[in-house]
Amino acid sequence: MSHEDIPGYTYGEESVPDSPIDREDFDLLKETVMFTEEDEEHLRLAGEVLDGQIDDVLDTWYGFVADHPHLMQYFSTPGGEPIEEYLERVRARFGQWIRDTCNPPYDDDWLRYQQEIGLRHTRRKKNQTDDVNSVNHIPFRYMSAFIYPITATMRPFLENGDHDEETVEKMHDAWFKAVVLQVTLWSNPYVIAGDY
Amino acid sequence: MSHEDIPGYTYGEESVPDSPIDREDFDLLKETVMFTEEDEEHLRLAGEVLDGQIDDVLDTWYGFVADHPHLMQYFSTPGGEPIEEYLERVRARFGQWIRDTCNPPYDDDWLRYQQEIGLRHTRRKKNQTDDVNSVNHIPFRYMSAFIYPITATMRPFLENGDHDEETVEKMHDAWFKAVVLQVTLWSNPYVIAGDY
Repeated sequence: MSHEDIPGYTYGEESVPDSPIDREDFDLLKETVMFTEEDEEHLRLAGEVLDGQIDDVLDTWYGFVADHPHLMQYFSTPGGEPIEEYLERVRARFGQWIRDTCNPPYDDDWLRYQQEIGLRHTRRKKNQTDDVNSVNHIPFRYMSAFIYPITATMRPFLENGDHDEETVEKMHDAWFKAVVLQVTLWSNPYVIAGDY
Repeated sequence: MSHEDIPGYTYGEESVPDSPIDREDFDLLKETVMFTEEDEEHLRLAGEVLDGQIDDVLDTWYGFVADHPHLMQYFSTPGGEPIEEYLERVRARFGQWIRDTCNPPYDDDWLRYQQEIGLRHTRRKKNQTDDVNSVNHIPFRYMSAFIYPITATMRPFLENGDHDEETVEKMHDAWFKAVVLQVTLWSNPYVIAGDY
């Protein structure tokens, strides 16, 4: 699927808002999650390993959400009916998100797009991209909690390449850092002004 | 060190505020980080392995902070001078935090104390417990980012017991879940009312 075919994927477009942090603050944030050029290399390697498995990863994540009504509600109408078109449109972007995460270095367009992703989970922008009638925001605590499942469930897919255990561990560790980095960036619209 | 000797440690005391979430929401949050009774067992086991190593863990974490001026400033005067007494008082509580994390199940007193810990990082309560003149809040993004170093650096200490690789992995995984769970709870005072 080319970028143009992904519904609502606006990476690099002018409509994307500014990032709340500048490059200097972003570098300090990367230092705080111990993110280095070696992690960038291992993420690119992870991208190669995951290339044919993106749908399997998404099946795992969607299965996890589907198993938990308290999560599935955010893809459903206020009455609790899952919205298939919404699930499918988000799924295409979620797959691209894996590819983008595995394609560092993270430049200004990438940094700005994290703010857009964050906003799309909050009452300021949820449902707008896909023009759907769903619950109008995802509580912050589930955004933060998702760091665990999105990190842990990736491990078996990274093992499906030709790499030794140490390299798999380094790819997984780089993925973990990239997830913490991004969830931290997505949190900005949830946080009280001046406290981020 | 008994609880009474830990400066500013008020776990279980009446001064501790209510939790913003009830038991039902807490159970859903635990489900979201895939936290089970098996994790509780492995955290208790981790507590045994870490028992004689708490100071070494704290040396590692304090070393990481000391190496990064953008983090060290939160233990320093507004002019940038590290406050030794502040560092020492927090250190005693940080050690007890490791012990408390390794002592599940997490009851109502534990849940309430997470809110107190969160508040102590924000402008609503930072510096008060230790009556110090330091920077008056820690930006949210560093709280969130710390999930990585606090999780990753624990691994070698868990390896220092008599347990096989699989058990070490399970202890570390339980620790990772417990850290995500707690940072998520500590985030509440940072988040816009109604969006948590």
